[in-house]
This record gives sequence, structure tokens and C-alpha cells, in this order.
Amino acid sequence: MKAEIIAIGDEVVKGFISNTNAAYIAKRMLDVGLETFYHSAVCDEKLAIIDAIEIALKRSEIIFCIGGLGPTDDDLTKEVVCEMLGKKMIFYNEYYEEIQEYFKKTGRSTPENNKKQALFPKDAIILENDYGTAPGCILNTEENKIIILLPGPPTELIPMLENKVIPYLKNKQNLYIKTIDLVVYDIGESHLADKLGNHLGISAQLTVATYVRNSEIIVRICARGTTQEIADKIADEKNKNISECLKEHTIGYNDSEIEDNIVKYLIQNNYKIATAESCTGGLLVGTLVNCPGISSMLSESIVTYSNEAKQKYLGVRAETLQKYGAVSAQTAKEMAIGIQKQANANIGLATTGIAGPDGGSDEKPVGTVYIGIAIDNQVYTYLLTLKGTREEIRTQTVKNVLCKLYRHLYKQPM
Amino acid sequence: MKAEIIAIGDEVVKGFISNTNAAYIAKRMLDVGLETFYHSAVCDEKLAIIDAIEIALKRSEIIFCIGGLGPTDDDLTKEVVCEMLGKKMIFYNEYYEEIQEYFKKTGRSTPENNKKQALFPKDAIILENDYGTAPGCILNTEENKIIILLPGPPTELIPMLENKVIPYLKNKQNLYIKTIDLVVYDIGESHLADKLGNHLGISAQLTVATYVRNSEIIVRICARGTTQEIADKIADEKNKNISECLKEHTIGYNDSEIEDNIVKYLIQNNYKIATAESCTGGLLVGTLVNCPGISSMLSESIVTYSNEAKQKYLGVRAETLQKYGAVSAQTAKEMAIGIQKQANANIGLATTGIAGPDGGSDEKPVGTVYIGIAIDNQVYTYLLTLKGTREEIRTQTVKNVLCKLYRHLYKQPM
Repeated sequence: MKAEIIAIGDEVVKGFISNTNAAYIAKRMLDVGLETFYHSAVCDEKLAIIDAIEIALKRSEIIFCIGGLGPTDDDLTKEVVCEMLGKKMIFYNEYYEEIQEYFKKTGRSTPENNKKQALFPKDAIILENDYGTAPGCILNTEENKIIILLPGPPTELIPMLENKVIPYLKNKQNLYIKTIDLVVYDIGESHLADKLGNHLGISAQLTVATYVRNSEIIVRICARGTTQEIADKIADEKNKNISECLKEHTIGYNDSEIEDNIVKYLIQNNYKIATAESCTGGLLVGTLVNCPGISSMLSESIVTYSNEAKQKYLGVRAETLQKYGAVSAQTAKEMAIGIQKQANANIGLATTGIAGPDGGSDEKPVGTVYIGIAIDNQVYTYLLTLKGTREEIRTQTVKNVLCKLYRHLYKQPM
Repeated sequence: MKAEIIAIGDEVVKGFISNTNAAYIAKRMLDVGLETFYHSAVCDEKLAIIDAIEIALKRSEIIFCIGGLGPTDDDLTKEVVCEMLGKKMIFYNEYYEEIQEYFKKTGRSTPENNKKQALFPKDAIILENDYGTAPGCILNTEENKIIILLPGPPTELIPMLENKVIPYLKNKQNLYIKTIDLVVYDIGESHLADKLGNHLGISAQLTVATYVRNSEIIVRICARGTTQEIADKIADEKNKNISECLKEHTIGYNDSEIEDNIVKYLIQNNYKIATAESCTGGLLVGTLVNCPGISSMLSESIVTYSNEAKQKYLGVRAETLQKYGAVSAQTAKEMAIGIQKQANANIGLATTGIAGPDGGSDEKPVGTVYIGIAIDNQVYTYLLTLKGTREEIRTQTVKNVLCKLYRHLYKQPM
């Protein structure tokens, strides 16, 4: 079945918000074995909406209409679809009560306008909105096509898609699913595609695709079967093959980012960690702190921008700074050991480099970064030569530190 | 003139990348007085591309086709458009030399495939690509419509749009432009729309629109005139009115984020800053460090997660922690003063709170955050009660600290 996604709303068309919903839905549809072939976005205008839906009904079987379910006069989606399909609108008191309940919870009375949100096309499957006032709905046309209306805000759309639409589509196709995401690192997308070769692709039972999440690449294996056992078996087998083929590049599974895996290791091994940052200035510890559970494993963390702070807090020697400079392997090493000692931690991480836009020289251009990793009695330093903006250099430094630490902890080839 | 944006590429349609280009282009078109009415995205398939362009030619005057300019067989955009317009493809040796030059610079030889990228439709205005190998081009149809082909990667598309397409469109319309972005804070979008009232809208001379950037709202004033003086005058007048009406909410102009304005203040007044973070764990200093020029103003910064670290580095008193808890106004106050003293800084910032998902209680639920701001001899504390995920609570805390500091520094009403 071909899927198509129509975003409805001036704010999307005029560019005030990015249409991230379309990518989200398309990717999730692949997981349930449905390919998306078209996206479009139109204004809050009746004729434009009708045109878009008419075109979609000609070429696709499942049509998502996103947005235009709100309480204002601009919100036309339900009305237009009803008119097109020749269906009546019916007032559902039970859903109106829920909308009233929603307002009550937020300490407000329900505006008259919102009554409109309890009107639905006859025979629609209504999708309650647990995170806002606009319920969605699923409609079946006489030609056996499916039109799915969803609210625009991603915070409302995503849970409705996950908890209501995807179960509906799985059920309709009698489908059970198993998804495995492999997080890979240190390999470009085209090189990865070469390595994966025929593993990539979409068939009735299996989708294998790659996509980029932050600075990581994900290989998603999504298997489908008529029972959960079948889906699990297909996914696990494919995972075995792909994991083998990407052995030295896999650093995590499913939603766990690399930092989650590091924190997991710290907790399991009761390993304390501490960081001393210069060029990344808090971004490294900030990334770690984003993982729940880190609190008890992270004793302390210092941003030592100035040479004085490096000496005062970390015990970096004046001769080292003078002889090799603040941006050097020697300084990175002393910083890592210094914070490890100071914080009485098992692991000390350090960064020192030139993030730009100023501060570069011929010898040490912008993007020159040294990282230091002290683990127990060992200390490792690495030179990175990075490109990009100040922000990109800092982000890449953090990813590199975490990747290298991960490999040390999990004893992977460096 | 109506504009329309067509994204071409499987990676967009299947959801592996979000179509952020469309929003970017649409927003910039508003600045040059052109409204976008339709977006679409289609696969790398000849018939799908033809269909999309045919539909667009019927309803729009300026059509952007994004992507499909690469060297592989999948990249069809130029070829398809040529065929549709009945134009010949011509090989431009000068552009081929530039492509070769590009490869040379990156230390590689030019693959045979890339020859294709030096082929252009007859009479096309060629847009050189300073950040990749795929040049774009502008075509005029017999019906006087404009088709603009741009490469897909935003790092290539954005500079080409800014440096080549927008000057072309301004010139074509004999248009001079002045844009002013007001950064506003502490006001919701709907309340803002009420306040702005008739200021909002698009006319031949002026566009006033709001959009969200990170957690800030931007009010963009974009004036157009037949001379730069006229455009400047219209923009400045509107800015005066709007700035007056949003007085207590404006915290910056143009691309400067709130942290840029703070850093500007620090540099101008030779004010040193230092931070002590608990729940934000490095995110606050990380945000400041993202501003070029901060180095000499930020002496040091500490993440003190544990009570021990709060005592050891900041001199928070054991009685305070015991009596009021780590998450309290008293602790935030002692942390702010402690880091200010320790770092010998003019300003000390502190955060302590419960970012979740665990750690909340009835008395102090997840989202309870205290911030401390010590400036010279004064110290201020604030209680925030935030909602959202761990990451959202941390991000909102940082925005709040920066906003409050900004207001103190620039003596704005709190």
C-alpha cells in the first residue's frame, strides 16, 4: 500500500515551522511495511485542501492529513474531508466532555469554539488526544482507501501515531513487528551502504534502512510477521548478520545513544566519572548529565578555560603549559589525570582545543583538539583535526570523546 | 508572485531526512515579498518529478526544485526539467574545471560520473556551488515562469540561496530589503499575536511575522522598497512601533541570541562570569561557551552534582544542605556566591533542581528548580516550576537563567 502525507496549515507552508511530522510518519510507516511516495503541504484554504486530497486519493491508498483540527475558523480539515466523502458530521458528547476535562485540568473553562472539536465524520474511528484538545480520526472511503486525520503539534501527533494509528495499521494487516536499531559510528553513509550491500532494502517481511540521528548513523532493521515469534526471528537473524558485518562500527542498539551505554557501564561497574573541559566548555558533561541515572556516578566536573584554572583545579604543570601550550597532548593528559585525582574518580575525561572562529595558527589551526582519557591507571590522548563551525567542532569533540571512551570500556578495537 | 517548493529525493520522501529546506526557503521568500503556497516532495522517479512540476507550473510563478543534482543515475532533476521545457543540455567546460578543482582541493581525483554535473540546460543562469560539486541553475519558461534548481544538502543550498538566488530575485523585482528580527521572551505566541494585532501581516512593502527559533519567539520585520533608503525607513518605523509595544519582552535584535547579548555586555564592561551547575550539569556554561569571545570573560565553571562537591568547591554550608536541602533557594544562593568568590568573578550563576525523571517528591516535584544569580554585591534567587522531559527542564532552566541575568544587566523590568 502506498502512503502519502499532506500537511495543512499556513505556518508550515510559509516556513514558520519545519514539517518534521512528515519525516517522522514516513519513517514509521516503513516499519509497518508501508512506503510513502509523496508529501505535500498546503495553506488553510478549502480549495487547496480539496485539490491536495483529490490528487492523493488518485495515487495513494493511505493518506495522512496533518493539522487543521483546531478550534478556530481556519481549521478546516475535518469539514473538507467530510464534504468530499459525502459524510455527515456528528457531535459526540463523550468527546466534548473529555475536551472540557482537559481545560478543567489546566484551570480554564472551555471556550465555545472548542465545541467544534467534538464533531466527527459519521463512521469515523475517533483517536483520542491525550496531549491536547484536538482528537484525530480514521476514515475509510468507499474505494477502500484510508484517510487519517492527525493534529499538527508533534507532541500530540507522535503519541497518537504510536499508540493509536500504528496499532490500527498493524491490526488491519494482521501484522506483528520487531524493530532493532543499530547505532554505528566512525563510518560514512556511502561506505556503510557498500558494506551493507544487499542487506539494505524493503520487502514484505523486512525493511533495512539507514538514517542519520544527530551525528550518529542508525541502521534500522524492521521485521514483520503474522505472529510476534516470526517477526522476532526474522529481525534477530538479520541483526546477527548485520552486526557481524558492522562489528567494529556498532556502538549501541535501539534508542540508546552512546552516552546511555557509557552510563550503563558506569552504573554496572560502579565506576565514577569526572570531566575537565576547555574547548567543549560544559558540553561533554552536559551530554552525560542528560542520561538519567548518571547522578551517583558523576562526582564533579570542571570547565577550565584559563591556564590558571587548569593549574589551580587540575594541577596541570606550568612547564607543560609553557613548553607545549594549552592545546597539546601533554596538557590533555595532565588534565585527565588531574580531574580523575581531584574528583577521586575511576575515569577522568579532558578536552582542550581550538573551537574557533579565532585562536587558530598555522601550527594549530581551528579544529585542532586534544582529548585525554584516564581510566584507572592508564591514560590515553588523541589528536582530532575537525572542521566546521565553533558549535560543530565542539559537538564533534564530544562525540569523539564518548566514542573512544565507549570503545575502551567495552574493549572494542580503537 | 506565488512560489512553490518541490523536494526531490527518496531520502526525503521515506523520512530519512526532514525537509528543513522548504521552511527555510519559504521564510526567506517572504522577506523578498514572495508568498509560498505549496510544498511537495517526490521520489527520484522521472514520472513523479514530471507530475509535480506540471502541477506546479499550473498554479505557481516561481518553482524551486530541490535535490537530484548529484552525479549518480538517480539524480534526474536537470534532465527531466530540460525535457519538459524542450531545452538542450550543454556541457560547460569551465564548470567542469571548477568541479575538478573542488576534488583536487579535497585530495581526490574527479570521478567520471561528476562530468554530468557540468551539463546545463541551454540559456540557464548557472549558480556556482561554493560548498559542493553540484551547481544549481535558474531557468525561465516561455510562459515567463521561473524554475530554480538547487542542491539538497542545506550546507550547499543555504549559501546558494542567500548569495545567488535572493540577489537575483531582488534585482528582478528591483527590490531593496531591510530585515529586523526582534527576539522576544516570556510571552506565548497567541498572546504575542494579540499584542501585535494589525502589525502582523504581509503587504507589498512590508512583512511582519512571528516564528519560533529554539525556545525563543522571533518577530521578523521585513521591509521592501525601490531604494535601500526607502526599505530602511519603512523597517525602522515599524520597528519603533513594535519595539514600543513589546518593550518588556524584547531581549535582542537580529541573529543575536540572548547569550550573545550577555557576552557583549560582559566584554564591554569587563565583567567576569562563572557558573556552578547542579541540575543543568554543564548546559548553562555550554551555552555561554558557544558565543565567540567568551573565553576571556569566563574564568571557570563547575558542575557540582553531589553535596560534597557543593561544599568542597563552593563553600555551601552543611547546615544549609541539611536544613533546606540541595534543591532550595538557600543552596542556590550559597552556590552563586560561592562560585563568584571562588572564581573571583563579578557574576556567579547557580542552578539546582530536579530534572527528573526520578528524584521528585510531593513537596518538590520533578521540574522544581532554584536559580541563583550573584552580581557584584547583590544576590537573587528564583524558583522555577517547569514541565517536560529531563532535557526540556534543563533547557528551560538555562533559558530562564540567561533571561533573568539579561534583565538584571540591562536593567529591564523583572
